[in-house]
Amino acid sequence: MTNIAHFTFARMPEIHFGAGKLSQLPQLIAARGTRVLLVTGSSSFVKSSRYERLTRELENAGIQLFQSTVSGEPSPEFVDAVAARFRADTIDCVVGIGGGSVLDAGKAISAMLRQEGSVVPYLECVDTKKHDGKKTPYIAVPTSSGTGAEATKNAVLSHIGANGYKSSLRHDNFVPDIALVDPELTLSCPADVTAACGLDALTQLLEAYVSSKASPMTDALALSGLEHITAGFIAAFEKGSHDLAARSHMSYAALLSGIVLANAGLGVVHGFAGPLGGFFPIPHGVVCGTLIGAATRANIEALRGDAVKHRATLGKFARAGSVLSGQDASTSEAGCELLMETLDKWIATTHVARLSAYGITPGDFPRILDKSNNKNSPVTLDRQQMQAILQARL
Amino acid sequence: MTNIAHFTFARMPEIHFGAGKLSQLPQLIAARGTRVLLVTGSSSFVKSSRYERLTRELENAGIQLFQSTVSGEPSPEFVDAVAARFRADTIDCVVGIGGGSVLDAGKAISAMLRQEGSVVPYLECVDTKKHDGKKTPYIAVPTSSGTGAEATKNAVLSHIGANGYKSSLRHDNFVPDIALVDPELTLSCPADVTAACGLDALTQLLEAYVSSKASPMTDALALSGLEHITAGFIAAFEKGSHDLAARSHMSYAALLSGIVLANAGLGVVHGFAGPLGGFFPIPHGVVCGTLIGAATRANIEALRGDAVKHRATLGKFARAGSVLSGQDASTSEAGCELLMETLDKWIATTHVARLSAYGITPGDFPRILDKSNNKNSPVTLDRQQMQAILQARL
Repeated sequence: MTNIAHFTFARMPEIHFGAGKLSQLPQLIAARGTRVLLVTGSSSFVKSSRYERLTRELENAGIQLFQSTVSGEPSPEFVDAVAARFRADTIDCVVGIGGGSVLDAGKAISAMLRQEGSVVPYLECVDTKKHDGKKTPYIAVPTSSGTGAEATKNAVLSHIGANGYKSSLRHDNFVPDIALVDPELTLSCPADVTAACGLDALTQLLEAYVSSKASPMTDALALSGLEHITAGFIAAFEKGSHDLAARSHMSYAALLSGIVLANAGLGVVHGFAGPLGGFFPIPHGVVCGTLIGAATRANIEALRGDAVKHRATLGKFARAGSVLSGQDASTSEAGCELLMETLDKWIATTHVARLSAYGITPGDFPRILDKSNNKNSPVTLDRQQMQAILQARL
Repeated sequence: MTNIAHFTFARMPEIHFGAGKLSQLPQLIAARGTRVLLVTGSSSFVKSSRYERLTRELENAGIQLFQSTVSGEPSPEFVDAVAARFRADTIDCVVGIGGGSVLDAGKAISAMLRQEGSVVPYLECVDTKKHDGKKTPYIAVPTSSGTGAEATKNAVLSHIGANGYKSSLRHDNFVPDIALVDPELTLSCPADVTAACGLDALTQLLEAYVSSKASPMTDALALSGLEHITAGFIAAFEKGSHDLAARSHMSYAALLSGIVLANAGLGVVHGFAGPLGGFFPIPHGVVCGTLIGAATRANIEALRGDAVKHRATLGKFARAGSVLSGQDASTSEAGCELLMETLDKWIATTHVARLSAYGITPGDFPRILDKSNNKNSPVTLDRQQMQAILQARL
């Protein structure tokens, strides 16, 4: 076993995992105060009987409820408006219940309730103003299994358009205080969203596992997440409305994907995600799902160019291949093949949309590539290799 | 793969791991304030050039240093005296640098600086007073690789004698804010202490791995810790003064043993540790090292009594056997044998003392057994089976 390189690992959220755990939310809120701001999406959860029961239980517990609704991916303007509206209300706790966009919105709001002014100067790609980390306690409750936002320290805000960007508000303190992960909440997630979210989690686990910033801790957690992807991905896609075991595997995998990406970083697929999501209305999960196969192939091919130097990384890709395919591989080469085959198979089975479905053409490649990068990829792909990934999924 | 049962996972410390990381301590302290209470042992660290350099750097950083020295395992009286002495000094940050006893002392002091009165009523086995969790920020810096106290939420305090007890001060908030783990600090640890501490970490990893409270997350981290025990244990014992790679593996394994015990609990060896350590001057690491072989054998034999029901747990013991021996096992049975053989071999190689070396006789068994229990063991051993463990290591 090789020596252990230096690493840091940020604080994780306190985790409450399991079917039915939503019932513990009122007492977790009550431990933090009596004035809660609930951030939700505009879709299924707020129309469910669970939502009705939750608001009734909060009322019974003497908790005063303030509410905000997010549509689509949150913009800086939205965060500014909500923070301005509730700043004077001395909110004790923010709770986000929803998919990744809602959780990021809640995270950014909790970070801005105790600051003056706009969130924009704090965004990584926009300005350099440093946030002091002071925030309102935040509880994240995912209703999809994808982004792992319940465990990450950043909130992605989106400004869509010709000068569009996606940029992160980031601070170690922004890791949610509590991640309450109740797989029952994901049962109603439609099949196409289940597939895209699942491939997002898979991409995050795989990219963090082979990342240049990986540590033995992130490796152990990434492999555990990948094992549960294997156990749950196809079943959650095919019979997700009633297969709670499959949903549990995916909820767990998504949670761990957030933990490992926060501590090991990501790779080239996420290096594309910013510009692609900023220029075009393509959901983040679709970006991941549509590119992860081609990007993995490109990485493996590039690493094979110096297979001796990259033996350890190729071994990791191979191990991921064994885990995801559920088959032992006798050689590193064979394990890598298993990985590429399994990804191709799953992408085909779940009918992930291609880039052209969102109006992307080869003419868009230059400006996408200008803004893309390799992040913490184990090997640096050049512009031509990166363009080939886009081309393969046009 | 089986369904995922409910689990909770408390917040972990922020982790800074790697050789030389001690140099970052002044800036980590400075981020928390200017008045630091440094808790150390009376032995090697405070006589080292590292200590001299650290105090000089703290002075240069404008940090006012208050100091306290622990001898042996900390008593409630010691914690009370230190907390009373420094309560008025508005300490911004407590730093513990030492073995498990020192780290626990610092943890308890950080928990009592913002309370009035004695720690005794808060101890689990003594009284039922609830701590509110308010504490002074705490940075734990281990100088041995054993207890994992840098990552746990409890501080063990010892009252030795005929009415002796070991009891924990415990709260989720008592997980150290930062675990700074610098394997260089363990290079000077003597071989016998290295062995005892290593077997403590191993016991904690193994007991948490097979615990009835284990989760997929604790499983992944426990296995990772066990892999690094395999990589480092014997080398750290045999050539620990200059094998930094082996020390790094053991520092990592000990850290993870603390994380998993805090979240999955422990087994019968730790069910013995309280009374044995309370009645006799036997170091905690020796208790673990001397009992883990016999206790594992007793557990496996008891589980084999209903091997169908306990198939999953026997499979875990077998996997631990493969990991620790570095050999693949074709059957669960064979893996369990590998585990028992490896433990027996390591205990023999490192000459772990027997119970009689600390004056324990068969006449002491009844009062030891009266106070011992199975903790979160995967199978409940009866009094006779537990006595056989003590007898085997008399």
